Amino acid sequence: MEKLLTVLNVEEARGRIVEVLEAKRTAVEAVALGEAAGRVTAEDIKAPEKLPPFPRSTMDGFAVRSADTFGASESMPALLYLKGEVFMGQEPPGGIGPGEAMVIPTGGILPPGSDSVVMLEYCDLMGGEVAVYRPAAPYENILRAGEDFQEKDLLFPPGHRLRPQDVGILAALGVQKVKAYAKPRVHIFSTGDEVVDYREEAGPAQIRDVNGPMLAAQVQECGGEPCYGGIIPDRRQDLHEQVLSSLRGADLILVSGGSSVGSRDVTMQVIDDLPEGGILFHGVSMRPGKPMIFGMGGGIPVFGLSGNPVSAKFSFILFVVPVLRLLQGLSPLPKYKPYLEACLSTNFSSPGGREDYVRVALYEETSAEGEKTLWARPVFGGPGLLRTAVRADGYFVIHRDAEGLPAGAKVNVYLFSAGG
Amino acid sequence: MEKLLTVLNVEEARGRIVEVLEAKRTAVEAVALGEAAGRVTAEDIKAPEKLPPFPRSTMDGFAVRSADTFGASESMPALLYLKGEVFMGQEPPGGIGPGEAMVIPTGGILPPGSDSVVMLEYCDLMGGEVAVYRPAAPYENILRAGEDFQEKDLLFPPGHRLRPQDVGILAALGVQKVKAYAKPRVHIFSTGDEVVDYREEAGPAQIRDVNGPMLAAQVQECGGEPCYGGIIPDRRQDLHEQVLSSLRGADLILVSGGSSVGSRDVTMQVIDDLPEGGILFHGVSMRPGKPMIFGMGGGIPVFGLSGNPVSAKFSFILFVVPVLRLLQGLSPLPKYKPYLEACLSTNFSSPGGREDYVRVALYEETSAEGEKTLWARPVFGGPGLLRTAVRADGYFVIHRDAEGLPAGAKVNVYLFSAGG
Repeated sequence: MEKLLTVLNVEEARGRIVEVLEAKRTAVEAVALGEAAGRVTAEDIKAPEKLPPFPRSTMDGFAVRSADTFGASESMPALLYLKGEVFMGQEPPGGIGPGEAMVIPTGGILPPGSDSVVMLEYCDLMGGEVAVYRPAAPYENILRAGEDFQEKDLLFPPGHRLRPQDVGILAALGVQKVKAYAKPRVHIFSTGDEVVDYREEAGPAQIRDVNGPMLAAQVQECGGEPCYGGIIPDRRQDLHEQVLSSLRGADLILVSGGSSVGSRDVTMQVIDDLPEGGILFHGVSMRPGKPMIFGMGGGIPVFGLSGNPVSAKFSFILFVVPVLRLLQGLSPLPKYKPYLEACLSTNFSSPGGREDYVRVALYEETSAEGEKTLWARPVFGGPGLLRTAVRADGYFVIHRDAEGLPAGAKVNVYLFSAGG
Repeated sequence: MEKLLTVLNVEEARGRIVEVLEAKRTAVEAVALGEAAGRVTAEDIKAPEKLPPFPRSTMDGFAVRSADTFGASESMPALLYLKGEVFMGQEPPGGIGPGEAMVIPTGGILPPGSDSVVMLEYCDLMGGEVAVYRPAAPYENILRAGEDFQEKDLLFPPGHRLRPQDVGILAALGVQKVKAYAKPRVHIFSTGDEVVDYREEAGPAQIRDVNGPMLAAQVQECGGEPCYGGIIPDRRQDLHEQVLSSLRGADLILVSGGSSVGSRDVTMQVIDDLPEGGILFHGVSMRPGKPMIFGMGGGIPVFGLSGNPVSAKFSFILFVVPVLRLLQGLSPLPKYKPYLEACLSTNFSSPGGREDYVRVALYEETSAEGEKTLWARPVFGGPGLLRTAVRADGYFVIHRDAEGLPAGAKVNVYLFSAGG
């Protein structure tokens, strides 16, 4: 019973993991820009040139020297001499001098000498002259060269996950390859004498593997490359050999139990016997997910997750995701994690002393006055029941110092999967 | 000027699109379970069998008849005859009768006749007998057959995006293939005489394509399959031929840019001339993203997006995403969209009369009392500047009836990309 008292809490457990893996990254590789979205930068990326490369018009109109239009009005238009026309994709046919103007389309290059554009609507073309009815301020309706980014501006520091607009800016600047951390290769094993590969027939006393395919999908969601190694019988030698051979090809190994005490002991021993490694801790004061094991072998992190799928899922969210983020060069936790504020539909008691991750289904109700309330209804059932994750939209957290929440309490719900 | 007054607002525009595409879906295909995460179900998926398939123990202990342990206590244990042992992956060696018990591991099949399990901790093995020191309630420490899901239970209706735990339950039930809607194939073209493919050298008056690679990454994020068609010159005949040939292979066509009035007119004419189709509307009262065109050709939706990348990005978020969702069998908008509540860092005035999508960078401040505040700082700059999207973490919305917000106002910020 003494062991129970020394179990780490969630932050302590995560802290230990981060401490060990702080400097651990996957290899750096050059990724073509078309494949770079979602990948994480491995070095400073600076603008190799300025953007826009030349001053451009943001309107269809006339390029002018703003000083020439000073005081122009409906009754006293500025009269400018028309010098020619700028065509898209071509350099201007020449510059303009004082008292001159040039036709320019949106996106066209400003002719030398001009510093602004007057919109078509505020001008009249009369023979070889343009009447301008409104003054143009300097830089009005133009983008200056380098106004978006200057040459050598830092675009992204290392550890930035590239979003679509980031790919866009790199394309604009002619960056065709990006140095990024390789996708972490994650070897996934399930153990248990009663478990069979989910692609096989299950015998009368067997159950199909749930954790393997579920964890593989979670790895993929997080930017990793899952490699499903199938089922290993609950024998120390078999598991030892499999994990040992994975140390050569994997960046991370997940072994999921083995729900019985004996099976858990086998996983513990195997991880503890790994070369240059061993168990760092086991057990975390959380619900579900308590029986997690974390260790290292040959510099590779190894998790022993519960055979219970809902426990394994939460261990993954809280501990494996930070490791996958670290390996890819990100901070272990995202800086900002979006949520939905909802009202708890019922009193919910929590044992206290451990973090409680409560699975909830969301629903909306509209009052007679038309006001909408988002409710979170706990999906009851032990962590052995997959329906507590399948029937839930997400979860909220009850802190270990709290012993439950009353009906109507506001909770921040994190969705299991965004955008569904 | 009359046109401006009849421009649709965001909901009206989305309503028109949804109306036209309501019944439009991609083809249904059978997807192997290992590839099914993130895909959307195309039919009811029912449980082909019950789960668990047999009653299982959730503890290491002894399978008993709960009635036999009624009133058991430390001082008056129930004495049961030990009948044998259940091994993992094997059927029990037989049933138990009144006054009997059997050793069982976590996950083991309950022997016929037993209805509960007493934890190891509350028992003593004495020769051929087990002393039980606590009463077991019926069904205690077991999962009944079918307790998670019964045979023929509806697991997922059509239009459900499969999450990792959903893949897990399908694996558990032996479902190896899922009928899902095909990933929408999205043909992406950029137009503009000044634009070159981002993989090519840009001449002295040319700029590289930003929208093509950015939109391709956005399509991928939303479960579509982008096909980058490169640059088409601003000539009606060229664009017409390209779009026409895409109608045969694409589920959705995006044409973006050119920025000038002439270029926009070409796109409008081309979409309007498509067989069995034409323009449904153009222009939406929003900022950025106003100059959007939507039409149909041969039953295929076609968007004309602004050449301006930030405008194109918001048109994508507000209108293309719902189309991609519809084509895949989802509702046009997600039921719940997570956000971060933040305080606006500065007064922000909005023109009113149109939805304003304000790009913001987030930062946290901690008061002397240790209280944390999340601030949202607008990234100023016209929509021609990519930095307004690249330097932003997300955006909030100012409704068209409002004319701005004061510093300190609470806003709901949507991140551009989750989990970064």
